[in-house]
Parts: sequence; C-alpha cells; structure tokens
Amino acid sequence: MTFTAQILTLYPEMFPGPLGTSLAGRALSEGKWICDPINPRDFTTDKHRSVDDTPAGGGAGMVLRADIMAAAVDQAIENHPKVPILAMTPRGKPLTQARVREIAAGPGVTIICGRFEGFDERLFDARPIEEVSIGDYVLSGGEMGALVLLDACIRLLPGVMGASSSGDDESFENVILEYPQYTRPQIWEGRIIPEVLRSGDHAKIAAWRKQRAEEDTRLRRPDLWERHRDSPDQSPSGAQEKDKDKE
Amino acid sequence: MTFTAQILTLYPEMFPGPLGTSLAGRALSEGKWICDPINPRDFTTDKHRSVDDTPAGGGAGMVLRADIMAAAVDQAIENHPKVPILAMTPRGKPLTQARVREIAAGPGVTIICGRFEGFDERLFDARPIEEVSIGDYVLSGGEMGALVLLDACIRLLPGVMGASSSGDDESFENVILEYPQYTRPQIWEGRIIPEVLRSGDHAKIAAWRKQRAEEDTRLRRPDLWERHRDSPDQSPSGAQEKDKDKE
Repeated sequence: MTFTAQILTLYPEMFPGPLGTSLAGRALSEGKWICDPINPRDFTTDKHRSVDDTPAGGGAGMVLRADIMAAAVDQAIENHPKVPILAMTPRGKPLTQARVREIAAGPGVTIICGRFEGFDERLFDARPIEEVSIGDYVLSGGEMGALVLLDACIRLLPGVMGASSSGDDESFENVILEYPQYTRPQIWEGRIIPEVLRSGDHAKIAAWRKQRAEEDTRLRRPDLWERHRDSPDQSPSGAQEKDKDKE
Repeated sequence: MTFTAQILTLYPEMFPGPLGTSLAGRALSEGKWICDPINPRDFTTDKHRSVDDTPAGGGAGMVLRADIMAAAVDQAIENHPKVPILAMTPRGKPLTQARVREIAAGPGVTIICGRFEGFDERLFDARPIEEVSIGDYVLSGGEMGALVLLDACIRLLPGVMGASSSGDDESFENVILEYPQYTRPQIWEGRIIPEVLRSGDHAKIAAWRKQRAEEDTRLRRPDLWERHRDSPDQSPSGAQEKDKDKE
C-alpha cells in the first residue's frame, strides 16, 4: 500500500513544493508516496468561504473555525480511516525521530496546517488529533512543519534511500548526535583528517567515532545526553556494532 | 536595507518554493526580502563537478567536501560580509525564537544546506559558521531547515505581518506556550466557548489566559516551564499587560 499524505491546508499550491524535487520528488514520481492536499475552504458554507473568525475574548489575529476544520478532517478520515491525524502547532508535542519512524512504518498520515492565531481548541476535544510541534520557534503557518514531517517520513519509506545509506548512524537514530565526518582532500588549508580515520583499523575507527559522538552530545546537547543515559537500551555501542557490520 | 537570504544549496530550484506564496511570497514580491540561492556545484573544479566524496574511515553515504563548500561560503561572505552564516545540521544548536528574532533584526543571513552524511568537519573549524538544528529528527537535507528558518525570520521583518497580529502573545515569544483559542460558532457539537471568554471582562479574560498558558506549558512542556521559571524577566504577566493594551 502506498504511503498517502493528506495535507489540510489553505495553501494547497505549497505541496508537494520542495518535496517534488530530489529524493522525495523521485519517490513521488515513482509512486512510493501520494501527495493529496485538501483545502478546508472547500468545506465552507457561506458565500465568503471564510475559514476563520475573531478570537473569543478579544485579541489580535484570526482563529481557524472548529466546524470548518472538522468537516475537512472528517473528509480526510473518510478517505483514509487508518492513518494518524497530526496538527502542526507550537502548542503540540515536540516531534521526535521515534514518532517519525512510527508514522513512516504505517499507511500514511493526515496533517492539518494551522494559520493565523491557530485552531479553535474544541477541534482537538472533538476529533482524534495529535498536536505536534517541529520546534520552539514561530512560523507563519503549519505548512513548513508539514513539509518537514513529510520529508522526514518519506526518506524512510522502503526503497527511497539507497542501500548505501541506511541511516542507522545518523543523529537521533541512537538518541545521540552523529560523529563528525571527514573526506578528501586529506589536507585542506593546513588541516589534516584525523590520523585514526586514515589508519584502516576498523575497531579503532569505531571506538573513535563512538567517543566523539558521546563527547559532542555531552557538550552540545546535555539534554539529549541525559535522555540517552536514561535509556540504556539505545546505547552507542549498538551504533558501534552497526559500523563494524557495514565496513 | 533589504533583508538578504543567501542559501547555499545543491537544489537552488527549491527556493523560494513555499516562501513564494502567502505572507513570505507577498513580502518577496514587495521587495521586503531577497532570495539568493548559490549552488556549491558552481565552485567545483573537476569535470564531474563533484561536491562530495566518501567518508574518511569508511561508512555509508557521502560527505560534502570542505574545499568546495568553503569556496561557496567565501563567495557568500564577499557578497554580504556582515550577515551571520548558519549551517543546517542535526549536530547544531537547537534553533530558538530568540535567535530567529536576532537574525530577523539584522541585514540578512547566509544558510548552508547539508545533504548526504553532512559536511567535512574542517569547514566549521576554518570558517565562522554557526551550526543550527531545527529539531531532533533526520531530514533528507538542510533545505527544509533553511525554509523553516527563513519563514520564521521573514514574518518578523518590518511591515510583513499586519498591525493586527503583533506576535507578542504567541508560543515561545514569552518562553511559554500560547493559551488556547476559540472562535464562533459559540456552540459547536454541544461544545460551548468557555464562559469567561464571553464575559467581556478584560481583566478576567487576561487572568484566565495567563493561567491556561501556564497550566498547558507545565503539563505539555515541563522543559519549557523549567526554563521559564529560571528567567523571571520574561514572565507571563508581561503577556497579560500586552493583552490589556490591545483590547
């Protein structure tokens, strides 16, 4: 079954957008995923086709109406009843690579993009919607979040990444950051590739990479490091073993 | 001076992409920002125009060469010497709204997009580059991160958002999440807008919003709540006062 992305957006022309090029674009043209934008405006009932209204209690901006958004969500559920429904909103749960993996392993996803001052909160009480945030910054709408989420999922779909790049060693796949990388030229502007990486000694290389991944995570992302220490199942020694397998 | 975004990318056709529509698109056509993609491939010297090579020490994937990327960065610096240079990479510092505000207040930004297994680490030793991550998930490249960063900056440029939406009350602007929003219809599927928001009592409404913002932040984002308690300058009482001003 083809992974189907339904995107509820007032800007359907933004999709597939950048997902129409490169890795995701090739996967799209090969039928490995389907991009299906749905415009909530098509579910309006008044002649102005309004999707939003002023905030109850006053304040700046406009709020997306629960009734209109729910009608669009209901259509999306009818089309694909078994896919998770995510709303991109700064009030949501931070997106993780673990959640991305779960979604990518399923039949698809429905993504609701906010705009303006966000959604009428009743939408989330009345429909099974997961509120998700891609980070602690403010965007003009949920569309960028939808693009990010889809990009993260699509690269994990079967056959999208080449066999050569399994993704196992990447940052966050093992809860910690990836080790630093080097490539030719061997000397550049007087800077030489670390000796160990030129040694050909696979055990030493794996040990160095493990140490650097841990050190960089500890220094750059103490928050991730804490989490890593709390979940010993996903130890970097696992990454080390994978390294060995590949070489 | 117009905010100039230089984007170093192997996929220049991805820009402005979704930033060519909606708020950012209007700002672009009004000359409020300039979108200037630079292709590192134009700085290659061999006949294959290769920008990447295999990782030193072995492993899957390809690594972006320091010499080629530095040549492209040097061109970007020559074009706009005074703008910060960011590289989008999962090894970077998490992007915050505070950093977005700083960048948006300046003359522009140069963004380097990674691909494959990332950059040769020496690039970051040799050039003044800030490594930035938009979140703890893996993307197919830095382009989505660049779009996210630019979207976040552009909406803050003078004259881009209408006077009606100042952005002051939004999630993360005051370190905590925004309060929930409601709009017409007043009753929907048996669900009624909270009484206080229909009261017309501005002081009560502000108090309710402050309480809900704090409560939701504590429940949904204990990490943000901790940070909020550590920085008393940005208290939600500030948000409350802004609320009053606007109404």
